[in-house]
Amino acid sequence: MAEVDMHDDRLLPPEPSVRAVARDLYSQVKGLPLLCPHGHVDPSLLADDEPFPDPAWLFIIPDHYVHRMLHSARIPHEELGLVEVDGTQRETDSRRVWKRLCENWHLFRATPSKIWLEMELAEVFGITTRLSADTADQVYDQLLERLTQPEYRPRALFERFNIEVLATTDDATDPLEAHQRIRDDAWTGTVIPTYRPDKVLDPDQPTFQPSLRLLAEVTGEDTMSYPGYLAALRQRREHFRRMGATATDHGHPSAYTVELSDTDAEKLFRRVTEGQHDAGDAEQFRGHMLMQMAQMSLEDGLVMQLHPGSVRNHDPHLLARYGLDKGADIPGPTDYVNNLKPLLNRYGNEPDFTFVAFTLDEAAYSRELAPLAGYYPAMQLGPAWWFYDSPHGIRRYRELVTETAGFYNTAGFNDDTRAFASIPVRHDVARRIDCGYLAQLVVEHRMAEDEAHEVAYALAYGRAKEVYRL
Amino acid sequence: MAEVDMHDDRLLPPEPSVRAVARDLYSQVKGLPLLCPHGHVDPSLLADDEPFPDPAWLFIIPDHYVHRMLHSARIPHEELGLVEVDGTQRETDSRRVWKRLCENWHLFRATPSKIWLEMELAEVFGITTRLSADTADQVYDQLLERLTQPEYRPRALFERFNIEVLATTDDATDPLEAHQRIRDDAWTGTVIPTYRPDKVLDPDQPTFQPSLRLLAEVTGEDTMSYPGYLAALRQRREHFRRMGATATDHGHPSAYTVELSDTDAEKLFRRVTEGQHDAGDAEQFRGHMLMQMAQMSLEDGLVMQLHPGSVRNHDPHLLARYGLDKGADIPGPTDYVNNLKPLLNRYGNEPDFTFVAFTLDEAAYSRELAPLAGYYPAMQLGPAWWFYDSPHGIRRYRELVTETAGFYNTAGFNDDTRAFASIPVRHDVARRIDCGYLAQLVVEHRMAEDEAHEVAYALAYGRAKEVYRL
Amino acid sequence: MAEVDMHDDRLLPPEPSVRAVARDLYSQVKGLPLLCPHGHVDPSLLADDEPFPDPAWLFIIPDHYVHRMLHSARIPHEELGLVEVDGTQRETDSRRVWKRLCENWHLFRATPSKIWLEMELAEVFGITTRLSADTADQVYDQLLERLTQPEYRPRALFERFNIEVLATTDDATDPLEAHQRIRDDAWTGTVIPTYRPDKVLDPDQPTFQPSLRLLAEVTGEDTMSYPGYLAALRQRREHFRRMGATATDHGHPSAYTVELSDTDAEKLFRRVTEGQHDAGDAEQFRGHMLMQMAQMSLEDGLVMQLHPGSVRNHDPHLLARYGLDKGADIPGPTDYVNNLKPLLNRYGNEPDFTFVAFTLDEAAYSRELAPLAGYYPAMQLGPAWWFYDSPHGIRRYRELVTETAGFYNTAGFNDDTRAFASIPVRHDVARRIDCGYLAQLVVEHRMAEDEAHEVAYALAYGRAKEVYRL
Repeated sequence: MAEVDMHDDRLLPPEPSVRAVARDLYSQVKGLPLLCPHGHVDPSLLADDEPFPDPAWLFIIPDHYVHRMLHSARIPHEELGLVEVDGTQRETDSRRVWKRLCENWHLFRATPSKIWLEMELAEVFGITTRLSADTADQVYDQLLERLTQPEYRPRALFERFNIEVLATTDDATDPLEAHQRIRDDAWTGTVIPTYRPDKVLDPDQPTFQPSLRLLAEVTGEDTMSYPGYLAALRQRREHFRRMGATATDHGHPSAYTVELSDTDAEKLFRRVTEGQHDAGDAEQFRGHMLMQMAQMSLEDGLVMQLHPGSVRNHDPHLLARYGLDKGADIPGPTDYVNNLKPLLNRYGNEPDFTFVAFTLDEAAYSRELAPLAGYYPAMQLGPAWWFYDSPHGIRRYRELVTETAGFYNTAGFNDDTRAFASIPVRHDVARRIDCGYLAQLVVEHRMAEDEAHEVAYALAYGRAKEVYRL
Repeated sequence: MAEVDMHDDRLLPPEPSVRAVARDLYSQVKGLPLLCPHGHVDPSLLADDEPFPDPAWLFIIPDHYVHRMLHSARIPHEELGLVEVDGTQRETDSRRVWKRLCENWHLFRATPSKIWLEMELAEVFGITTRLSADTADQVYDQLLERLTQPEYRPRALFERFNIEVLATTDDATDPLEAHQRIRDDAWTGTVIPTYRPDKVLDPDQPTFQPSLRLLAEVTGEDTMSYPGYLAALRQRREHFRRMGATATDHGHPSAYTVELSDTDAEKLFRRVTEGQHDAGDAEQFRGHMLMQMAQMSLEDGLVMQLHPGSVRNHDPHLLARYGLDKGADIPGPTDYVNNLKPLLNRYGNEPDFTFVAFTLDEAAYSRELAPLAGYYPAMQLGPAWWFYDSPHGIRRYRELVTETAGFYNTAGFNDDTRAFASIPVRHDVARRIDCGYLAQLVVEHRMAEDEAHEVAYALAYGRAKEVYRL
Repeated sequence: MAEVDMHDDRLLPPEPSVRAVARDLYSQVKGLPLLCPHGHVDPSLLADDEPFPDPAWLFIIPDHYVHRMLHSARIPHEELGLVEVDGTQRETDSRRVWKRLCENWHLFRATPSKIWLEMELAEVFGITTRLSADTADQVYDQLLERLTQPEYRPRALFERFNIEVLATTDDATDPLEAHQRIRDDAWTGTVIPTYRPDKVLDPDQPTFQPSLRLLAEVTGEDTMSYPGYLAALRQRREHFRRMGATATDHGHPSAYTVELSDTDAEKLFRRVTEGQHDAGDAEQFRGHMLMQMAQMSLEDGLVMQLHPGSVRNHDPHLLARYGLDKGADIPGPTDYVNNLKPLLNRYGNEPDFTFVAFTLDEAAYSRELAPLAGYYPAMQLGPAWWFYDSPHGIRRYRELVTETAGFYNTAGFNDDTRAFASIPVRHDVARRIDCGYLAQLVVEHRMAEDEAHEVAYALAYGRAKEVYRL
């Protein structure tokens, strides 16, 4: 039975002199604690600390990287155990779902999903059997057996993973009940929320109106008046901050920001809350509210993150049947140089403001983002995001960004995942690729080894600590 | 006299451990039959099976890669034997044309044209003399001598090249007479047409009206009525299918698609056929007709190819004097995420539809095309096209596409050439570069060698076979 | 005390067989004279031949690459000795400015600034001490001591650097007094001006009107009449030509060009000179005037350079306080395929016209610029510019451009710097990277070593000589 090759040198560059330096750099950072300042783990996972149900629920059903690829190969979502918006789950046999993955495992060759899952099986679960139709059942049984053991429960894994801080992403209106339970409990793991107000900032979201009403409920503010709305947003930020948050996050269609007068802002607010707005108004409102968020960050010290440029829900049939975040979000070209100008002009030189920008448009790395981050003090570049959180993607990021912005205008690694058990392997991939990049600089005599060691530490740990104020 | 270095390891990565794996992978695929599902060879070449006239007509006059480069170095088209639209050929001495190439051979260093031509001379014609002013005459004579021999006739080469299927590209109105002759003949080579209806779909083409009249003639349909026009297009598709076609191809300025009501479509059809349309109407019509083509592909099973994003005939003087396809087509930015949305929303999840998208805008590989192909079941990515059918171009394609879309959402290789004698070397270059890419994955422990062997086979042969239904 | 690693093989590729070829290629070109056809050295530096004042004025205050990075790390411009527009300099202690750089030297890891400065210290000043807070004073003293010696004066350095020609960049209205002094003097160094008329071509520049009045003064023409304006521009070109200029240069927001009738041009001229224009008019005027510049280049033989695509003065606070060119110019997407069409259609096939295009939008290298330069005889590609004049930037340029345009449609190296003492190390970096690229082609059997030697010479020397008519 074929075994997966978990070589110590995996993902390190092949050339022996470079690999030797990379190995040395990596050996110094591989054991550093994990800082996870941006991700999508459900905090109730750690509040409840229940065992994970089964391999399909652990690796496939919630992972859009995995089921999008299977879907692309004409394996229908309904055979993959996905749950429809009305609650129907047409395939409830998790073993069959798992088998669908194993018999199509070749589809994932050279993808990060393959790397993550193979490393996860090997390093978290001690399984190095190669996945295939033939081995599906055996691996399923092994996994199922492991998952019943106490050392595979979420908190045990959290500790084994050496996670120093885990930030979740939470609606601005979220009561943070799971976070409260973790804090009230004797368990000492650090899990913090992140303030994500998209649903109450974006008039194009279908839930905008109910979200505003919910915001009114949780704050007691009149969110249908502009001052009340701003006060409610501030109040929630303060609540998040008291619950440990160090950052906000904003997922917008574009990076558009705009400076409006109070009068214009108030009129615009009225149009969008009364549903009297057009597409231009919605963009204006989002752009104006990003400016307000920057202002509030300046006041309360929360680091501001922006994740723009995804055309969400490209497939309306998928959206209608299975809901949001199911793998049909497609990047588009993203303008930063003009769109961020108002925000950076007003806040980019502020000594107490930190703004972390991400992109799905790699053409912007060297053209716009590195030059902007290499000038504005407040701006940092988030790591290679989403489709680009992969060996070649991370390498391109370093090659395209570093010569203009250096390492110290970048924000360290984000695992950005809802797949809790994949967190350590995602960090490990990034650490390996970064060490490979640094090793090449050493062997090309662009950097001394001691300098490279300092940078490797910064990229694996120090930058995230400093930028996210952890 | 300098010899060209036809080393067995050419185009394989330099690092010895990677090169060793690459060599091994390549040794398994180098002899596979050639599948040529998209190209521009004139079928009468194989129907007539006449000897090629001379080196200028074989390598220069019809090859826009070659004469565009010479033109860029201030060597006028008229000295290169190009034939003007009125039939004038100012330089009729093919030996002098050939000499112009040889004495400027340095211009082609590091271009794919150099690789192709040198490999072609060596492997097809057994000539490894390096081209220069000094060797021009000798090589010309050697070539001329070879071309008179029966083993250098098109059919003999077709067999020697081990071509399993060769698809040509043919106007929708083409009577396919050469194809018929090949079928009627005892020769067993498989040559199939591809349905290319641009001239009857694009109101901006100067020949749109006469092409519609021709379409009426060959079908007997009233192509000035919308239902008659659609019926004529369907009838021709059926004819192509019966003649062996497995695919259609569409060369549009953009990837724009649009869903129109029947009423609006019919009104638009009237405007464009009466010449009452503006630029917006023409784009709408092309976008609407791509949807119709997808619908018809769903019905008749022809694979739909789209080649968008070229600003054709950038130099109007060239167009006026020498006509189409003479080297002045320049890529522009191409939007896929918005433009293909209507088509993919309607047909992208259809189990029986296959849609192959190409690009000349490499910024779209990782940003739009790999994410789209990595989600929609019907969509496949065509290989690196045109300017990017080159060692670095193919390598970039793999690096930018694979981590998101995998290998199994890509369509294998297309030689896409009108230069018949270059077909095997073009496949060989792609096979070498793909094996080099796979070898690096192996040496970085991302993939086992047996997995890489399977993928190498798929990229060289299996994917084209499956995607194009050959 | 740590020493900087000035290894002979620095910046050469790590793989031993490639490095060996690269070393051999580099050994043949490292000593070639420097051709500097585009840059921003102040000619009075060489006319006056005064000693450089001190390390802060040599390496930091005038270098926007350096102070932008320090600013990005929250070190204020006022602590870096920058001079405000009203002449205030808040930090006048150059030793403290120098120390700010040294104690933040880690910020520059992997940037070209680090490479340049370390090589400059080592090769020009013989100092290999690694910069840090601890070594700042010692290096400062060493530098200060060197700068008083006659062999570190500008002319002595010019000779030591083996500069064959140095082109400066000069306003069209510049009297070229420093150039005249150099010519009148016994010193034999060749320093030539470049005609840069942006201030009199761009109605959006705040100094447009006064610049027109200045143009009238220096020429005696009525620059408020369209014929007088054109005559004045022509007269200045002729003056520059007589002073040795071989080129013009144009820094425009976009690459837009447009063909206007004389009547429309004259009307537009009236609107822009009377301040009655809108943003569209300004772009039209710039686009029209690029066409006029091409026409005049055709007449007088000056090579035309275009540097488009920078959003200048992105930070208005910086502009207001410190003026132009202080590090807040950010690239944006740049269209060449449509914007250059009028210019290339009219002048691109002219045998006596040379047009050199640059870009800050790397997405255009393979998509637009290489295809355009690989077709139009008049067009050449300028080297990797500004943020991309770096090891990875130059390598990307070669990989993205060469397979389509070859080497002989590129214009050789430009150092493009105002930092005089950095000129030789900038050339050295480019020579090393180009040799590394060529070596890989050799080892992959794409090119013979003698061919690579010829190309290495062309890239280091020959292309600039030919393209810029030096």
